[in-house]
Amino acid sequence: MGRPRTPLLDRERITTTALQLIDESGDFSVPQIARRLGAQTGSVYHHVDGRDGIVELLREHVTSGIDPATLDLTPWDTAVEAWARSYRAAFAAHPRAIPLLMTSPVRAPRVLEQYERAVNVLLAAGFDCAGIMPLIIALENLVLGSALDLAAPETMWELTDQVPTPRLAEALAAVGEGRADRAFEVGLTAFMNHARALREKRVDVGG
Amino acid sequence: MGRPRTPLLDRERITTTALQLIDESGDFSVPQIARRLGAQTGSVYHHVDGRDGIVELLREHVTSGIDPATLDLTPWDTAVEAWARSYRAAFAAHPRAIPLLMTSPVRAPRVLEQYERAVNVLLAAGFDCAGIMPLIIALENLVLGSALDLAAPETMWELTDQVPTPRLAEALAAVGEGRADRAFEVGLTAFMNHARALREKRVDVGG
Repeated sequence: MGRPRTPLLDRERITTTALQLIDESGDFSVPQIARRLGAQTGSVYHHVDGRDGIVELLREHVTSGIDPATLDLTPWDTAVEAWARSYRAAFAAHPRAIPLLMTSPVRAPRVLEQYERAVNVLLAAGFDCAGIMPLIIALENLVLGSALDLAAPETMWELTDQVPTPRLAEALAAVGEGRADRAFEVGLTAFMNHARALREKRVDVGG
Repeated sequence: MGRPRTPLLDRERITTTALQLIDESGDFSVPQIARRLGAQTGSVYHHVDGRDGIVELLREHVTSGIDPATLDLTPWDTAVEAWARSYRAAFAAHPRAIPLLMTSPVRAPRVLEQYERAVNVLLAAGFDCAGIMPLIIALENLVLGSALDLAAPETMWELTDQVPTPRLAEALAAVGEGRADRAFEVGLTAFMNHARALREKRVDVGG
């Protein structure tokens, strides 16, 4: 028998398995990954830099869904808006990974490079250095909050006879379908208008 | 021996135990709750309307941390801004409950009542009925994204020698402490300015 063409364990298979576990249950453990791959837990650790290393592999995997060409667009606000849309779509594909990735420090080199590019876009557009990270993080809060919302049921409010909510019923009926996308458009428009105003120094940075 | 003053099982203890499990692991199961309370799984089901019922008890519990007086403030924008801050603080106390609550339909009567009140504030302020839910959901995306971010480490970006990220390093150094709060202020300012402009019909609803 020759060597199997697909090695039992490699970083890609470990990443894919961790992502499957997260998609199913919201979390993963190294022993669970080993079990799925028919390997020893120690063998998994041999390929990755601990559990944290797997989180960074996941981060690279999910982030690779963001179209890198968006940040090359001009002018800067077209770039930022397109990046935000692509960012939301990439994370909406794995909503249950969002809490884990949002609460673990970013170490993945390719992801750090993407932040470097985003900072460069805003610096080149003339933003104050001190305001750039708050701006990027505010956009991420909106993008990732909205990506989580895409995993919610379309009928998110189930009204009951126990309490009268006639205005909520009207507002829900009036919004129609696609409430998550419409809300994201409102939030993104708000953000982009504010970013343009900040750049032109028409408003205080705030906070 | 008299009757114990605290019954082994009641809805409050079930809720508290479910929340402990979520704070620890990001999820809960009914058998886990039963085990912690030294009860049979069937006995837990006797007190609540299934797993979904427990989720709604959790939603009422977390949402009860939002100061209801905020929505009585005047004018409307003071009310909405104060509500958003209190909403963020309440959910930041249980960040690991956010994905679960964001992706399950809202059925809890007291929470539906709170949405009714929020819709009333915006209707009374003169907003178009069809635009109110997108506005509220956009605010929730920001608030809940930011509440998750409060659970992140203060040093969220760990730069490496593997890739040069000089601009990111500068931007991070310039932002100083409290990046999550500063980002929330940027996002909230953007949202409130946009909401005021929408009310005055100075901008399109978008989306």
